[in-house]
Amino acid sequence: MAKNKVAVIMGSISDADIMQKAVSVLEQYKIDYEFMVVSAHRSPDWMYKYASEADKKNIKVIIAGAGGAAHLPGMMAALTTIPVIGVPIKSSNSLDGWDSLLSIAQMPNDIPVATVAVNGSHNAGVLAVEILAIGDSKLKKMLAETKKENNLKVQKQNEELKQRRKQ
Amino acid sequence: MAKNKVAVIMGSISDADIMQKAVSVLEQYKIDYEFMVVSAHRSPDWMYKYASEADKKNIKVIIAGAGGAAHLPGMMAALTTIPVIGVPIKSSNSLDGWDSLLSIAQMPNDIPVATVAVNGSHNAGVLAVEILAIGDSKLKKMLAETKKENNLKVQKQNEELKQRRKQ
Amino acid sequence: MAKNKVAVIMGSISDADIMQKAVSVLEQYKIDYEFMVVSAHRSPDWMYKYASEADKKNIKVIIAGAGGAAHLPGMMAALTTIPVIGVPIKSSNSLDGWDSLLSIAQMPNDIPVATVAVNGSHNAGVLAVEILAIGDSKLKKMLAETKKENNLKVQKQNEELKQRRKQ
Amino acid sequence: MAKNKVAVIMGSISDADIMQKAVSVLEQYKIDYEFMVVSAHRSPDWMYKYASEADKKNIKVIIAGAGGAAHLPGMMAALTTIPVIGVPIKSSNSLDGWDSLLSIAQMPNDIPVATVAVNGSHNAGVLAVEILAIGDSKLKKMLAETKKENNLKVQKQNEELKQRRKQ
Amino acid sequence: MAKNKVAVIMGSISDADIMQKAVSVLEQYKIDYEFMVVSAHRSPDWMYKYASEADKKNIKVIIAGAGGAAHLPGMMAALTTIPVIGVPIKSSNSLDGWDSLLSIAQMPNDIPVATVAVNGSHNAGVLAVEILAIGDSKLKKMLAETKKENNLKVQKQNEELKQRRKQ
Amino acid sequence: MAKNKVAVIMGSISDADIMQKAVSVLEQYKIDYEFMVVSAHRSPDWMYKYASEADKKNIKVIIAGAGGAAHLPGMMAALTTIPVIGVPIKSSNSLDGWDSLLSIAQMPNDIPVATVAVNGSHNAGVLAVEILAIGDSKLKKMLAETKKENNLKVQKQNEELKQRRKQ
Amino acid sequence: MAKNKVAVIMGSISDADIMQKAVSVLEQYKIDYEFMVVSAHRSPDWMYKYASEADKKNIKVIIAGAGGAAHLPGMMAALTTIPVIGVPIKSSNSLDGWDSLLSIAQMPNDIPVATVAVNGSHNAGVLAVEILAIGDSKLKKMLAETKKENNLKVQKQNEELKQRRKQ
Amino acid sequence: MAKNKVAVIMGSISDADIMQKAVSVLEQYKIDYEFMVVSAHRSPDWMYKYASEADKKNIKVIIAGAGGAAHLPGMMAALTTIPVIGVPIKSSNSLDGWDSLLSIAQMPNDIPVATVAVNGSHNAGVLAVEILAIGDSKLKKMLAETKKENNLKVQKQNEELKQRRKQ
Repeated sequence: MAKNKVAVIMGSISDADIMQKAVSVLEQYKIDYEFMVVSAHRSPDWMYKYASEADKKNIKVIIAGAGGAAHLPGMMAALTTIPVIGVPIKSSNSLDGWDSLLSIAQMPNDIPVATVAVNGSHNAGVLAVEILAIGDSKLKKMLAETKKENNLKVQKQNEELKQRRKQ
Repeated sequence: MAKNKVAVIMGSISDADIMQKAVSVLEQYKIDYEFMVVSAHRSPDWMYKYASEADKKNIKVIIAGAGGAAHLPGMMAALTTIPVIGVPIKSSNSLDGWDSLLSIAQMPNDIPVATVAVNGSHNAGVLAVEILAIGDSKLKKMLAETKKENNLKVQKQNEELKQRRKQ
Repeated sequence: MAKNKVAVIMGSISDADIMQKAVSVLEQYKIDYEFMVVSAHRSPDWMYKYASEADKKNIKVIIAGAGGAAHLPGMMAALTTIPVIGVPIKSSNSLDGWDSLLSIAQMPNDIPVATVAVNGSHNAGVLAVEILAIGDSKLKKMLAETKKENNLKVQKQNEELKQRRKQ
Repeated sequence: MAKNKVAVIMGSISDADIMQKAVSVLEQYKIDYEFMVVSAHRSPDWMYKYASEADKKNIKVIIAGAGGAAHLPGMMAALTTIPVIGVPIKSSNSLDGWDSLLSIAQMPNDIPVATVAVNGSHNAGVLAVEILAIGDSKLKKMLAETKKENNLKVQKQNEELKQRRKQ
Repeated sequence: MAKNKVAVIMGSISDADIMQKAVSVLEQYKIDYEFMVVSAHRSPDWMYKYASEADKKNIKVIIAGAGGAAHLPGMMAALTTIPVIGVPIKSSNSLDGWDSLLSIAQMPNDIPVATVAVNGSHNAGVLAVEILAIGDSKLKKMLAETKKENNLKVQKQNEELKQRRKQ
Repeated sequence: MAKNKVAVIMGSISDADIMQKAVSVLEQYKIDYEFMVVSAHRSPDWMYKYASEADKKNIKVIIAGAGGAAHLPGMMAALTTIPVIGVPIKSSNSLDGWDSLLSIAQMPNDIPVATVAVNGSHNAGVLAVEILAIGDSKLKKMLAETKKENNLKVQKQNEELKQRRKQ
Repeated sequence: MAKNKVAVIMGSISDADIMQKAVSVLEQYKIDYEFMVVSAHRSPDWMYKYASEADKKNIKVIIAGAGGAAHLPGMMAALTTIPVIGVPIKSSNSLDGWDSLLSIAQMPNDIPVATVAVNGSHNAGVLAVEILAIGDSKLKKMLAETKKENNLKVQKQNEELKQRRKQ
Repeated sequence: MAKNKVAVIMGSISDADIMQKAVSVLEQYKIDYEFMVVSAHRSPDWMYKYASEADKKNIKVIIAGAGGAAHLPGMMAALTTIPVIGVPIKSSNSLDGWDSLLSIAQMPNDIPVATVAVNGSHNAGVLAVEILAIGDSKLKKMLAETKKENNLKVQKQNEELKQRRKQ
């Protein structure tokens, strides 16, 4: 049986550094993924084709990052029935990420996009894992492990704070 | 020879009242137009088809209105080489029109959308006329007439102000 | 085997009318659900208890709505490994929903919340269905049906527009 | 017959670097243009004169960039019947471009300005080309070529991504 | 010798109700004034003419109100050396007055506009009085009187509060 | 009798530099304090435990700093009856601190958080001192001293200004 | 010994309805209070006098509400060493409460104001009680009671929800 | 007769670099001025004293700059009948100047502050000159000269642009 896959796509290669963080999460959880540029604006035909073939390629979650008037996540949600996670990317120019956040989060009825924080591609990866973990008890356990480790990190940070103050 | 045409399209029939103002301008200038719902999110295939046939139908300007995470104007700009005028429509829910404005205005390089004010479909109509008037001296004269009338209206408003104050 | 379930929870009963829209979607897709008030601020112990029992109750997706400084979605994401969909609810007072949107979307690393539009609980329901449809081909087909119907509705709206203009 | 011309004007020479991007597009499409400082605030008489002579100089589109309380695009729209494209320029000081965007986009009825993204002068150039292409099939073809090239660039970016990941 | 005069002008007669509050202040202080529509966008020539004649008419302060992409105050400041007080008017449509505030306050160097609060035309009137009072000791005394009265009103409000609570 | 104590807690060790400013104030006033990482999101159980033991440890004021979707201050207010001072921390990514400010300030009824300025942890310290000074006349005197010193600093700044201008 | 007192003051009697909610909380907890108009702008001398006498009147906490450019809370913090709780009041005109929130929360170093939510005067009352409860174990118990009741109310809301759904 | 004077005051010496620009304008026009730190928050008594003596010192205009929750301009307007020009200063921390702008511009009735752009102290100086020029024909002429020079600068910038392009 084909393995479940996550598509990590972005509007431009300039978004690759940020979107790489989603990929790193998926690799940590040993989840198959694709990492591609699919621009709604510069390659709308390719976007359509990509969307129409997603089910056949066993893509179960789409993580789509885009900046400014960000249409890629919303259009993927319009073109498929696959859950789409949108990552608002802050462009370096202006408006501090507000444009990306609003043009991804404020989708109309029946076309949801699961929006994460501005530049929050790490969390897009984690959310994809949580979604796949519904049908995969091994992933579920790994997620619980991470939560425990995060808890331990807090305690380590407290020890570090104590050390700092002793000096 | 086929007459030039303007497409006035919108994401939902609930936007029709606002977009009607663009139509009224076009009618005043005796410009042919289409008035249709073309939803990027609910009817992406229809949107693609509509875009691909626009040139053949002699559409010279596209006026596209949409609210919230508004993708219709940007996608029409991605799919055609026809100038697209975007009308950000304020939805009744929340955020007061900011989401529509930003998701239409902040387009990436090579995919411009000529954005007008929030709910500014009247101006979208006028802008379409100005664009068509480049190749149509009669429209150009009519536009000049309107400017004169607007000027006169200001003077009439001043007379009205005087009347009010006399009472 | 126990059926998959979606939890639809909210910070206060005053949010019930908006959150009901998520429930309606779930009912339409014949998905089991719980509909409850779980306030992070007024009932933090109950929230902990609720979160700790969610897995046992076979809850696979949590839809959490809250307004203002909205902490319920983020805390549910902190307390479970279940995917959490956050619905920012616009309170009637002030700031037009910005507070809810930001305090739900801007979550830190490892604690994602899938944020939908302000008051977008309908879409929270659809997103939950899309997530459950990963492991349920019947839901997947139903989602595809809805997309087709939405497309038809656009065409019906166009016919209605034509009728209106004939009058 | 005189060739069509585009005016690229700006409020201050400090805006020249950003507005140069519009000029580069026009040069790429072999479109005649003027590149000038016309300040609404520091040279209002010159602005009036400039506007009144635009038609005679065969200017068909005006691209006007300005920052802060940006009045140049709106005043050119008030003074001519030529389509005006407004470029909101982000000043280095504060408010991150919001002031420029709003004081250009939110024009009143009958005085439209075709607003592009903050610092989006490249797109102002493309929009001008699209407008002139209505009456110029050669430009129309060139625009279609650019769209194809953009599409190819996306594919090249995907190849680059693959290369990066192999390393 | 001609009496000093204040011009109270606005972009449209629809702003008259709000701008009337400035007039009421001027009347209370027995200051001569003009109350007129001078639209930067619909009547730019009239605006120029109006500005050029202001000094001759003994206008010492200009109060200019406008909404949306509000250019009238800034253009009056560009066209005269008379101090200009700008009143951002909130239009009923959208964006809650932000557009008016920013397009009036954020003026470039050498072209100041004295901006008051959104819809703050009352204060524009008071500011004009304060300015004229520099050279008019009678006005100065009247202003001091108003301050005393305001102080008394606070004490009366406290008495009213006490009464309310006794009931 | 156990001395009164202030808890200075934060969502992550990366906030320690900013939160240190609160600690410095407390040290200046010789007030006992704890300085710890207590993450609402990564260590919810530890947060619950921490909150439940606060009274026993004689903690009288809690200063809690957090960034982004900042839930720590609000949750501490939900879990204790101790006054909580919230410090919105600006994360380096985007949105310029708005998210932290709103998710801390906009708390619902009965769960107040005393919010200070973005990154305003110094003031959080001073506010804690003012609160403890209600029952401690020595602290009260020290606060009055600081006010006098601040006043003197203003006069020193004026002398410095004079010196600068003489040069 | 004189009883501790809370001052509930506001910039104008028009704020009394909102500020009354703070008073209601204080009455519920049987805390002495004053309820007065003290305008920073209309009665600055009275504000000084009021501030200078606060300690003598045994005022331990000041709750100050104001709207727009709200200076009362900050000035009370400047003039006293008493903890000041600021209530940003949304004026009916424009900007949706942002002006009040920012001009109260963003205080400079050494002059803290404990800011609550826009129109959050109820919470200002509760915060005052929490502060006074530091030195008053009876109040502390009452606060714990309220938390328990709030928890019960959540359970009652859940029962109500069940009832609604049965119908 | 004592010469008219302008007070240029600021909340902190850290604002001196920005406020110096107002001073430079005044020096250029040979206007007497004072340049001082007068903190509303750290030196309220000094502020009261300063305000009460302003008339005697022949201060005709007050330019007051402040950042964050900026109260100095508004309090000077409350304490005197002298026209106050407010300069919102952007602090380096966060919120990009919005807090300063709103807490200066949004003043209540009867207490106007003439607000200029964020960091716009140059324009505060020019506005002060314009105000003093009402009673001083020499200043009036100098202002007209500056306008002419600004106009010439625009033409010089155009020559510079031409030179650049020839290279």
